[in-house]
Amino acid sequence: MKGTPVQDLPTYEDVAAAARRIEGHAYKTPVLTSATLDKELGARVFLKAENFQRMGAFKFRGAYNALSRFTDAQKKAGVLAFSSGNHAQAIALSAKLLGIAATIIMPEDAPAAKLEATKGYGGRVVIYDRYSQDRDEVSRRVQEETGATLIPPFDHPDIIAGQGTAVKELIEEAGELDALFVCLGGGGLLAGSALAARGLSPEAEIYGVEPEAGNDGQQSFRAGSIVRIATPKTIADGAQTTALGALTFEIIRREARDILAVSDAELVAAMRFFAERMKIVVEPTGCLGLAGLRRSAEQVRGKRVGVIISGGNVDLHRFAALLAGSA
Amino acid sequence: MKGTPVQDLPTYEDVAAAARRIEGHAYKTPVLTSATLDKELGARVFLKAENFQRMGAFKFRGAYNALSRFTDAQKKAGVLAFSSGNHAQAIALSAKLLGIAATIIMPEDAPAAKLEATKGYGGRVVIYDRYSQDRDEVSRRVQEETGATLIPPFDHPDIIAGQGTAVKELIEEAGELDALFVCLGGGGLLAGSALAARGLSPEAEIYGVEPEAGNDGQQSFRAGSIVRIATPKTIADGAQTTALGALTFEIIRREARDILAVSDAELVAAMRFFAERMKIVVEPTGCLGLAGLRRSAEQVRGKRVGVIISGGNVDLHRFAALLAGSA
Repeated sequence: MKGTPVQDLPTYEDVAAAARRIEGHAYKTPVLTSATLDKELGARVFLKAENFQRMGAFKFRGAYNALSRFTDAQKKAGVLAFSSGNHAQAIALSAKLLGIAATIIMPEDAPAAKLEATKGYGGRVVIYDRYSQDRDEVSRRVQEETGATLIPPFDHPDIIAGQGTAVKELIEEAGELDALFVCLGGGGLLAGSALAARGLSPEAEIYGVEPEAGNDGQQSFRAGSIVRIATPKTIADGAQTTALGALTFEIIRREARDILAVSDAELVAAMRFFAERMKIVVEPTGCLGLAGLRRSAEQVRGKRVGVIISGGNVDLHRFAALLAGSA
Repeated sequence: MKGTPVQDLPTYEDVAAAARRIEGHAYKTPVLTSATLDKELGARVFLKAENFQRMGAFKFRGAYNALSRFTDAQKKAGVLAFSSGNHAQAIALSAKLLGIAATIIMPEDAPAAKLEATKGYGGRVVIYDRYSQDRDEVSRRVQEETGATLIPPFDHPDIIAGQGTAVKELIEEAGELDALFVCLGGGGLLAGSALAARGLSPEAEIYGVEPEAGNDGQQSFRAGSIVRIATPKTIADGAQTTALGALTFEIIRREARDILAVSDAELVAAMRFFAERMKIVVEPTGCLGLAGLRRSAEQVRGKRVGVIISGGNVDLHRFAALLAGSA
């Protein structure tokens, strides 16, 4: 990897433009605080609650931003995405709101609830067998049939800029920050958050937080080039990515202070804290930021810290099992 | 029961005065909405989220209001309460904030978590054996020793007025309402809510909602006098009261449109909706309002409806078991 040319990377201006496009369509989610957490850490912590975002996760921001930039011809031909998670629902809902046909390619073994949710938003779902069919081949076939534009889940300038709007809102409401803890899967949210922070709170130290089992981002950050891993086994299903993207890696390499990795047990402890003390439901991936912050207690004492709670989409039985310690 | 003389009942002015007293001490909790719920009911629903209140429930409002009216002599002698639930924590925390000594009388078999939480707020806990000791006798002894003022959990003008501040905030933020659904245990919240609504949204129809197993309020409302029942068996532990108070009954009798009763299964369904769709943790008692509203779908179509979510204090294992359907 030689790095992406500077001129191709999105900037703070793209985040600001995305914020104008999504205004009135995405929710302006609340910034929460907890006296208990502040006392525990000796810091002032501001948590951006994207579990209250439309469709339950920050992913709506990037998807809506990307689709609202479609030309008339693109709108007519529709959008295509592959995902079994929040990106699929974000594309399906954004497409519905903008009057664009959406096709979502999902594996046959995707959870029924996610399949139904995506259909519920009006998306056409194309199922493929991940053992006998190649997803890219299925995708190419749909693109040839329809002329639809493929929107990837993270490595796209409009997705990155859209995700950055959450941190833009956070800093506008809470003021400048000394540090920011953001969950890291493919890097769309972390890269966008870094761009937003550079524009509004330039001194803030940016930390990405990954599950230990899937620490490809940490490895990549330290190696200085993208490291690819096998699909990791972790409860943080939104961070089961196998590699960062070219754009997201380049931004993260330049802007992040460090990448931390936390255990599933630390994620469950954060999930319990959110439920018991803050009365909110957070999906395992959404717990990465708080778990990473707690790992960094020494460094943040006396500081103003931001945390992104990325989403709240977790199957209730799984959530209950994790809370009860039986998962 | 001949009814309480009019001049002794608190009014909207007392709610307004309580709002001034608690300002800056109680949280101004958010008013939540849900597109899914509005679609389900064909109504516009505004949910006042008191699960985000200090110590996790509306009870802080009444307790702080009552204690802030203490004379200097009362402050010096301290406050006394008996409760194994949210009232105990509300009194302990309010007393701590106001520099008043608090004694909380709790049964020996109170949950350890509640005992610890009350102690954590700085309250002195006096344990009694509910099988061999009389609570009123224990209470009298503490009062004789200390001269402390007893603050009951609901049947007190300052408690009622304080609880009414939640609906005052709700209507000030959401505008006038056609109907309001409020959980009903001893009646402090319902009576206070009715007073607030009479002042700010006089046409609003007020509904109290009880667990079916403990429908003493419904029986009392229909009989026109207070009906006393045995301690009911229901998951709504905050509504396991055996009778309304003289003040709360009189206000409810005058102001409520009706008292509804819902099953534990309806409470669990509401709890799941809150967790799955709204990403919030609500205790069983806090689910009464939504469950009662869903029972009234026909009457509320096309209307603007308020619901009070009274609190979020539920043991995580119990919460998990209820979500999973194994409780």
